[in-house]
Amino acid sequence: MSIASMIESIGVEARKAARDLRQIRRDRKDEALERMAGKLLENNDAIIHENRKDLTGAHEAGLPPAMIDRLTLNTPVIQSMAEGLREVAALPDPVGEVTRMWTRPNGLRVGKTRIPLGVIGFIYESRPNVTVDAASLCLKSGNAVILKGGSEAIHSNLFLAGLLQEALAETGIPRNVVQVIPTTDREAVGILLGLEDLVDIIIPRGGEGLIRFVTDHSRIPVLKHYKGVCHVYVDRYADLKMAEEICFNAKVQRPGVCNAMETMLVHERVAGEFIPRMITRLQDAGVEIRGCPKTVALAPNIKPAVESDWPQEFLGLVLAVKIVSSMDEALDHIDQYGSHHTEAIVTDNYNHVQRFLAEADSSVVLVNASTRFNDGNQLGLGAEIGINTSKLHAFGPMGLEELTTTKFIVYGQGQTRQ
Amino acid sequence: MSIASMIESIGVEARKAARDLRQIRRDRKDEALERMAGKLLENNDAIIHENRKDLTGAHEAGLPPAMIDRLTLNTPVIQSMAEGLREVAALPDPVGEVTRMWTRPNGLRVGKTRIPLGVIGFIYESRPNVTVDAASLCLKSGNAVILKGGSEAIHSNLFLAGLLQEALAETGIPRNVVQVIPTTDREAVGILLGLEDLVDIIIPRGGEGLIRFVTDHSRIPVLKHYKGVCHVYVDRYADLKMAEEICFNAKVQRPGVCNAMETMLVHERVAGEFIPRMITRLQDAGVEIRGCPKTVALAPNIKPAVESDWPQEFLGLVLAVKIVSSMDEALDHIDQYGSHHTEAIVTDNYNHVQRFLAEADSSVVLVNASTRFNDGNQLGLGAEIGINTSKLHAFGPMGLEELTTTKFIVYGQGQTRQ
Repeated sequence: MSIASMIESIGVEARKAARDLRQIRRDRKDEALERMAGKLLENNDAIIHENRKDLTGAHEAGLPPAMIDRLTLNTPVIQSMAEGLREVAALPDPVGEVTRMWTRPNGLRVGKTRIPLGVIGFIYESRPNVTVDAASLCLKSGNAVILKGGSEAIHSNLFLAGLLQEALAETGIPRNVVQVIPTTDREAVGILLGLEDLVDIIIPRGGEGLIRFVTDHSRIPVLKHYKGVCHVYVDRYADLKMAEEICFNAKVQRPGVCNAMETMLVHERVAGEFIPRMITRLQDAGVEIRGCPKTVALAPNIKPAVESDWPQEFLGLVLAVKIVSSMDEALDHIDQYGSHHTEAIVTDNYNHVQRFLAEADSSVVLVNASTRFNDGNQLGLGAEIGINTSKLHAFGPMGLEELTTTKFIVYGQGQTRQ
Repeated sequence: MSIASMIESIGVEARKAARDLRQIRRDRKDEALERMAGKLLENNDAIIHENRKDLTGAHEAGLPPAMIDRLTLNTPVIQSMAEGLREVAALPDPVGEVTRMWTRPNGLRVGKTRIPLGVIGFIYESRPNVTVDAASLCLKSGNAVILKGGSEAIHSNLFLAGLLQEALAETGIPRNVVQVIPTTDREAVGILLGLEDLVDIIIPRGGEGLIRFVTDHSRIPVLKHYKGVCHVYVDRYADLKMAEEICFNAKVQRPGVCNAMETMLVHERVAGEFIPRMITRLQDAGVEIRGCPKTVALAPNIKPAVESDWPQEFLGLVLAVKIVSSMDEALDHIDQYGSHHTEAIVTDNYNHVQRFLAEADSSVVLVNASTRFNDGNQLGLGAEIGINTSKLHAFGPMGLEELTTTKFIVYGQGQTRQ
């Protein structure tokens, strides 16, 4: 069988499984998730054994230590995957919720109800635990999923998916609700991205290169974010002690993630007091500062920022700093260089709060809180399959609800149209 | 200036206008809509004069009468456009609505609020009144719009858009909120479809050919439906008198539209009683019937259906009829041949109602009511810019709310992440 016909037949099976899923109630889905958790724990040693094959390959291929770290499955990681499955089982089922219902003058009762999207193509890089996370969220939201992980994780992914499929079959749910593409051939992704009649949505998770490739080649709608160029704006009316804590947290607590601060914008009226102290604290934590000329004048031991620093996601201990003369200038800067991901303002001014919330054009806009809260768990969505920075469908972190859509249901008593 | 740079500069202006719109409140948008209505009425004669240029061109080009009819603007059509503008002014503003808000254990207050999508590219065929409809819905929902109408309507569209822009400018709203692409060059559409950094969404309205072209060439997400292959399933537990009225209405009341019935599915237990009477009534109204072999056995004076009839949108007085032995067979048929647009069941059986509503995978699913109700106005959305049969973003008729998305807003008191 050619790769193309193999992938297509996976798509056909996923479509069938998605249709069967429409009739399966919450209790059965939750039972399957619980069984999956049990299977992972029971097969701890076998999982580690399969994972070793991938690790051996990774060492032979000379992959960098950070990548090998992400690829590694051990008992604590397996336990945390099992816990994740049980947490998803405990979340409410979004499917079937009637979000609104109203009655028309002619007596028709019209409602909107949540339904699954259908078939989701999920494309990701090295972490094999993502296989389990993504499968659990798709199952709970009533979707079939086709998983394409990194080639370096193929043994782990296939073995994990096999366990998940066993649990599905034992619960009377079609096993093809969860399928892993069983090849490391790079051609496979391109073929998957062309199955517009079988796959409803593509969610890529990984570096900017993967995401650009998927977006450029997909005939299926893609929900994704390229990068998080997140800003904190310290307003002239900020509580400067609070601003310091928020900026420090936003930059330093976990600098390698998409919701870390990349650029700090500071109002000129408070810059003299705020900037030197803040920069010293950040430098003490190992942060390299790149400042605008006004910032450099206040803190001469820093690098001057260049144009390419403003739109950059440093993903590390580097921070660009700019002094602005108004909130409008801050908003203009965000509009020009931001990535529609996360922006925060620190202020005690009521009007500035209202304007910043309305005008900052990002998926999450925070007042007096760290950008690090843009995360499905932190915001209370329960779990997250990714963050979407395009405005279509679901802008921002996507939990179970965002893996559904709504359709209209209409209850009549024989109404016809005049 | 080349066409490419002209279209791109229209996109840049639209993006700027969309940003300015974020600060404009409902009262000003409504005032602009009222002024637009006034301008149309005041310029009745001038509009008809410009429209004549298009009509002359259309006659010279030998366009069919139906197309010339759609192209024609006269006083009643102009009055109805003005009325439409006033109706949109009276609708609630979706922007800024906080759809939900909750508090996290750490005290963060997290909400979802409606925001405009940004810039909408609207591509349509001959009716110039669509220019006014689409512009009004985009303005009210806070979006800038780039309109590309049919080349045969270019004079009418440019003149109408000029009036709308005057009204915008007089209200202090950027005139580039509404722009018509001022060329009939076919290249223009392709260029517009490539402006992925400037346009957020494309909505095409027209025949299947236009929609396929747009979908195949767009780098921007497209909300559209190709066709409406709508089914009515007459269950064995149907009130047959009600079924007759619903089927007659669904097929005959306006057969050329997307929510008309194309295939009638009838349970075999009631076929003997229902089919002959129903078919006679439809034939008396001029409907050509194409039936499955069982249907032909009951009504010998009809054509046998061929395979290509089942997935077809006849857009006229033709109906395919199939007798099924169960609701499952009806649902299978809909899955195989349907277009995810509209399905109706006629039944008095509680379980069949629940299952049909859950399992028929279309944007609007009705019980005991005509398919003709799949329409934004009829369902109570107020007005409609189109119907989307892909599940992403907004499945089904799209009103003002569906021209928005939501972002997260977070009110903190200095929270940082642990």
